[in-house]
Amino acid sequence: MAPIYRIDLEPIGRRIEVAAGTNLLEAAQQAGIDLVAACGGIGICGTCRVKQVTGQFSPVSLVEEEQLRPEELAEGYRLACQLEVAGDMRVEIPPESLVAAQRVQVEGQDVEITLDPSVLPFDVALDPPGLYDLRSDLTRVNQALSEADYPAIRADLAVLDCLSQFLRSHDWKARLVIHPDAHTTNLVTALPVGAPLLGLAVDMGSTKLAVYLVDLSSGVTLAKSGVMNPQISFGEDVVSRIAFANKGEGERKLLQTRLVETLNQSAAELCKIAAVRMEQIVDAVVVGNTAMHHFLCHLPVSQLGAAPYVPAVSEALDVRASELGLAIAPGACVHLPANIAGYVGGDHVAVLLTTQSYSPEKTLVAVDIGTNTEISLLHDRQIYSCSCASGPAFEGAHIHDGMRAAPGAIERVRISEKGVQVTTIGNTAPAGICGTGILNAISEMLEWNVLDRRGVFNRQAAGVRLYHNKPEFVLAQGAGRDIVVTRQDVSEIQLAKGAIRSGIELLLQEAGIPAEAVDDWIVAGAFGTYLDLSSALRVGMFPNMPLERFHQVGNAAGVGAKQMLLSVHKRREATQLARQSHYVELTTHPNFTHTFMETMYF
Amino acid sequence: MAPIYRIDLEPIGRRIEVAAGTNLLEAAQQAGIDLVAACGGIGICGTCRVKQVTGQFSPVSLVEEEQLRPEELAEGYRLACQLEVAGDMRVEIPPESLVAAQRVQVEGQDVEITLDPSVLPFDVALDPPGLYDLRSDLTRVNQALSEADYPAIRADLAVLDCLSQFLRSHDWKARLVIHPDAHTTNLVTALPVGAPLLGLAVDMGSTKLAVYLVDLSSGVTLAKSGVMNPQISFGEDVVSRIAFANKGEGERKLLQTRLVETLNQSAAELCKIAAVRMEQIVDAVVVGNTAMHHFLCHLPVSQLGAAPYVPAVSEALDVRASELGLAIAPGACVHLPANIAGYVGGDHVAVLLTTQSYSPEKTLVAVDIGTNTEISLLHDRQIYSCSCASGPAFEGAHIHDGMRAAPGAIERVRISEKGVQVTTIGNTAPAGICGTGILNAISEMLEWNVLDRRGVFNRQAAGVRLYHNKPEFVLAQGAGRDIVVTRQDVSEIQLAKGAIRSGIELLLQEAGIPAEAVDDWIVAGAFGTYLDLSSALRVGMFPNMPLERFHQVGNAAGVGAKQMLLSVHKRREATQLARQSHYVELTTHPNFTHTFMETMYF
Repeated sequence: MAPIYRIDLEPIGRRIEVAAGTNLLEAAQQAGIDLVAACGGIGICGTCRVKQVTGQFSPVSLVEEEQLRPEELAEGYRLACQLEVAGDMRVEIPPESLVAAQRVQVEGQDVEITLDPSVLPFDVALDPPGLYDLRSDLTRVNQALSEADYPAIRADLAVLDCLSQFLRSHDWKARLVIHPDAHTTNLVTALPVGAPLLGLAVDMGSTKLAVYLVDLSSGVTLAKSGVMNPQISFGEDVVSRIAFANKGEGERKLLQTRLVETLNQSAAELCKIAAVRMEQIVDAVVVGNTAMHHFLCHLPVSQLGAAPYVPAVSEALDVRASELGLAIAPGACVHLPANIAGYVGGDHVAVLLTTQSYSPEKTLVAVDIGTNTEISLLHDRQIYSCSCASGPAFEGAHIHDGMRAAPGAIERVRISEKGVQVTTIGNTAPAGICGTGILNAISEMLEWNVLDRRGVFNRQAAGVRLYHNKPEFVLAQGAGRDIVVTRQDVSEIQLAKGAIRSGIELLLQEAGIPAEAVDDWIVAGAFGTYLDLSSALRVGMFPNMPLERFHQVGNAAGVGAKQMLLSVHKRREATQLARQSHYVELTTHPNFTHTFMETMYF
Repeated sequence: MAPIYRIDLEPIGRRIEVAAGTNLLEAAQQAGIDLVAACGGIGICGTCRVKQVTGQFSPVSLVEEEQLRPEELAEGYRLACQLEVAGDMRVEIPPESLVAAQRVQVEGQDVEITLDPSVLPFDVALDPPGLYDLRSDLTRVNQALSEADYPAIRADLAVLDCLSQFLRSHDWKARLVIHPDAHTTNLVTALPVGAPLLGLAVDMGSTKLAVYLVDLSSGVTLAKSGVMNPQISFGEDVVSRIAFANKGEGERKLLQTRLVETLNQSAAELCKIAAVRMEQIVDAVVVGNTAMHHFLCHLPVSQLGAAPYVPAVSEALDVRASELGLAIAPGACVHLPANIAGYVGGDHVAVLLTTQSYSPEKTLVAVDIGTNTEISLLHDRQIYSCSCASGPAFEGAHIHDGMRAAPGAIERVRISEKGVQVTTIGNTAPAGICGTGILNAISEMLEWNVLDRRGVFNRQAAGVRLYHNKPEFVLAQGAGRDIVVTRQDVSEIQLAKGAIRSGIELLLQEAGIPAEAVDDWIVAGAFGTYLDLSSALRVGMFPNMPLERFHQVGNAAGVGAKQMLLSVHKRREATQLARQSHYVELTTHPNFTHTFMETMYF
C-alpha cells in the first residue's frame, strides 16, 4: 500500500490525509474543498492555482510552464491538477481559486398569475378505530376522501408509514396534502390542520443556484437565496463536468449528490429564515440547462458531450423528491419542465414562459447569456431557438486577469485623456476583471482606438505596452501585478460575442425578418442583468437597435420556475412552448461559418 | 469504554467480539447467528438454550431456574437471553436452538389458469440519433409506442437511466417490458430482444418463506425454494416481533432489511438454478399475514400488537420493488393482495383464491393452521373469516420436548400392548417431538385411556410416571434424557385445538348452518400437509365428518401467489374476495368464551 501523507491547506486550515501519488485537485475535491477547476482538471484553464509553502512537491510539469508565468512559478504558484502528492506538504489556496460566496442573481421581474398549484390541502377529522370499527387506517382516510368525491389514495410506502403514525399521534386529525387526478389521489404528506403549504422553486445555473421558498396559498416568496453550484469543483462548465461524469458511475453520482446536498442545505436555510419546517415543502419546480437537468436526475450525460448532443429525456418530468434525495415532504414531487434540445434546456423554457406573459403578441428575441447562451425568436406564433457556445469569458474565465463578479473585480472602465479609471465591485483594491468589466474595457478601447474593428492593438496608443513582444493594455495596478487586457482576451470576447450575434442573425434568417422587426429584446440571466448595454451594442453583441427596445429582466428562469410552482396551467403552457420550438442547430447550418466570421468583427 | 471480550460459538465455529455487559442473545443475533428466540428474548420460552463450555459466566438467573431443569443447569445449560458477557467464553449452541434448514412446504396443488400477466414485452428497433434527427431517447421510444397505440412512458429515473444506457449499448434494439394502462405506459426495464420475462411469487410465513421463480409466458415454475424466515432471530411469532419492532425505528427497519436480504438471496439462488439473471425478474407477488405484510412494507406495526388490531393498510398495494429493496428489474412492481383484518392477511386471501378455483359453488371451510390459524367459511356466496390464536404448539414450541419438523423429531406415535413405538423424521435417533407427533401421541393416549376427555392423566396407565409429583408419559429415550408428554403439553394442545374448533363453530353459527352442510374441508399450510387427519378428528380439532370431505392442499397461499403473478384477473378476484369477507372478531363475540371452554375437551 502507498504511504499516506498529510496536506495542510491554508488559509482555510484544513488538513487532509492522502495516499502518495494522489492528484492534489482530486484529493481536495474529495475532501469537500471547493477548488475551482474550470476545465475539470485536464490542465488547460489554469484556474486551480495553489501556492507551495513547505514540503515535498512533484516537479513543475510542461502544462504548468505553459499556464503560469515565470515569475508566478518563481513565487511558488502551481496547478493543483498537476501536482502529485509525494510527501507531507503545506499549500496555500489563493481566494480566486476557491469557490466562495459571490454576487448571485435571484431577483427577476415577477408577474401576477392566477394561483393554481398542483397540490391542495384536505382537512380530515376521523373516528378512531374501536372494537366495532376495524377499518384500516388507509380505508378510513379513503372513505373520508370518497365522501368529498376524491378517488382512493396512491402513495409511496414511506408516505403511508408517515400517514399512520401522524394520525395516531394527532388524534386522527390532519391536513392531508393531496394531488388528485382522474383515477387516484396522490398523497404528498400529512400536516397539522391549518399548516400552510409551501413550495420550492429552483433555477440551477451551471455556476449559481437560485432557490426560492414560496407560500403556495398566497404566491408570496417567503425567502430566497443564491448559492454557488458545488459542481464547479468538478469542472467550471457543463462540458468539463460531462467529461468528469464520463470517468465512471461514481463520478456521475458524485455530481448528483453534491448538487442535491447543496439544494437541501439551501432549502433548510430558507426554512429557518421563514420559521417553517422542511416537511411543509410539498411541491417543487426545478429548471436548469439540459446537462444540469440530467445531472440532477442522474440520467446519462455522455451523449450530451458529443454531436449530435441528444438528451436522454426531453419530456417534462414529475419525479419523486425522494428519488432525487431532496429532503422535503415524503411524497412530494419535483416538476422539471421539458427541454428543447441538448443545449436548450428547461431554464430557457422558463425564460420563454416569463417573456410570453409580458407581451404574447409582439415579436421578441429572448437571450439568456452564459457559458452557453440560449436564444429564442418569437414571431408570428412561431418560436425559433438555438444555442451558442459563448464560452466562459463573460464569467471571467479564459481571460488573462479574469475573475468572477466578486469583490475586487473591475466592473467598469473609463478611458479619458487623463488615463484609465476603473471601478471595482465593493470598491476594494482591484484583484482582476469580471465579464461586465472586460466588455466595458473593450468598448472603451474601441472608442479610443486602442483596438481596431478586427481586434488588433494600436501599439502606439497610450496604455499599450509589450510583454514578450505581445501588446497588452494596462487597466490598473493589482496586488503584486498589473491587471491587463491581452490580445488573447480580446479574441475571447470576439469569439463570445460573435457566437451570440451569429445565433441572433441565423434565427432572424430562419424567420425571414430583419432585426428592425423585433419589438423587444429580452436580456435574461445574471450576466444580462449587470451587462452594460451600450458596451454590448458597441462591440456588436446585438444588432444596433434603440436602447429602449432592450429589457434586462434579471433571473427570468427563476421567475418562470416560480410561475410553474404556483400554476399547473403554467406547466402546461411551458410544455406547449417547448413542443412548439423549432430548434435550429447552428453547427450544421449552411450559413453558420460565414455569419460567425463576419460577426467576430467589432 | 467497556472492555471487549471474545465469545467462541460452537459447533458452528464463529468467534464474535462484544463489549462487557452485552446480552449474549443480542450479540449473537447482531452477528447474524440465527439463534431461536421464540418469545423475542424476554425469558419466557426457554428456546434460546446454550451450553457453557469454558470461561466466565454471569450467575444463573431466577428465570433460568424456572425454565431449565436442575439436571440441565448441572450440565451447563443456560438461556442466551439471560446471559451477560462478563469475560471471554466458549459456548455450545445445541442444534435445536439454531434456525437451520428444515422441512419446508413449497408444494401446493397447482391449477390451470389463463395467462394474463400484468407486464408484457414490446420489442423495438429504433433509428439511432443523427445530425438531422435530434429526438431525445425517450421521445424516440415514446414515438415507437405511440405507433402501437400505447400511451407515453412513465418511469422512475433509475429506469430511464437504464433505458438510455441499454439502447446505446444494444444498437437501439430492445425488448421493453411494459405495463400499460389507459393513460401511461409504465416501463419496467429494457432487456435484450427475445429475453423471457420472469416473475417471483413469495409466500411469507412467520416461520418459512416459500419463493417461486416463474416464467410469465408459460406459467412454468422454473425453480422454487423454501427458506427460514430470518426474523425468527427476533421473535418466533409475530407478536414477539411486533414487541421487538416497538423498541425503536432501527429495530423495525432491521426486521424489514433482514427479510428483504433473505428474499434477494433466495431469488439469486433460484436465478442461478434456472440460469437466468435477476434483472429478468420483471414482476412479483408477495403474500403473507398482515404483520409480515407490514414488516415487509415497513409500515407501522404497534397497532397490530394491541386491540383492536387494526392494519395500517388493508388495500391491495402495488409497490415499487426498489422501495422495498428487492434487487429485481429496476422498474418492477410488487403486488401485495388486500388483507381482511389485522390477523387475517393476504396469504389467507391467496388460500381463498386457490380454494375458490376448485369448487366455486360448494360450501367450504378453509383452514390455514399456524401459530395463528385463519379460517374462512364460504357459503351461499358469502365469506365469513376469523383468526384464532392457536399458538406455536403445532410448531413444537411451548411443548416440553417440542421441536420443529426437523430430522430427529418424532412425527408418529403408536401405542400398543407392547408399549410405545415412535417414528422420527429422517429415521434418526429421537431428539424431540414436532407438532404432528404431539397430536398423534395425544390421539393415541386418548385411544388407550392414558388421558380422559378433560386431558387428565390416568396415573395407573402403562408408561405414565411421576416427575416432581406431576404425571408424564414417556414416548422414547432421547440423547441424555427421556422424551415425554407432560400435563402442560396436553393443555397446550387443548388450547390450540380448542381455539381452532371454536373458530369453526362460531363461523358456522354466523352462517346459520350445521357442520354437515359443509361439502369440503380444505386444510392448507405446511402443518396441514403433514397433519394426521384421524388424530386431528380424534382430538376434536375439526367436527367429526367423513375423512373424504377433508383435503390437505399444501401451500395454497403460494399457489394463490403464483396465480396472481400470472393473471391480473386473479388479482382482481383476490381483491374482490377480501372485500366480500365478513370478518368475525372472536374475542368480542358473545358466544366465544362458552364455545372455547366446550371445545377444549377432547
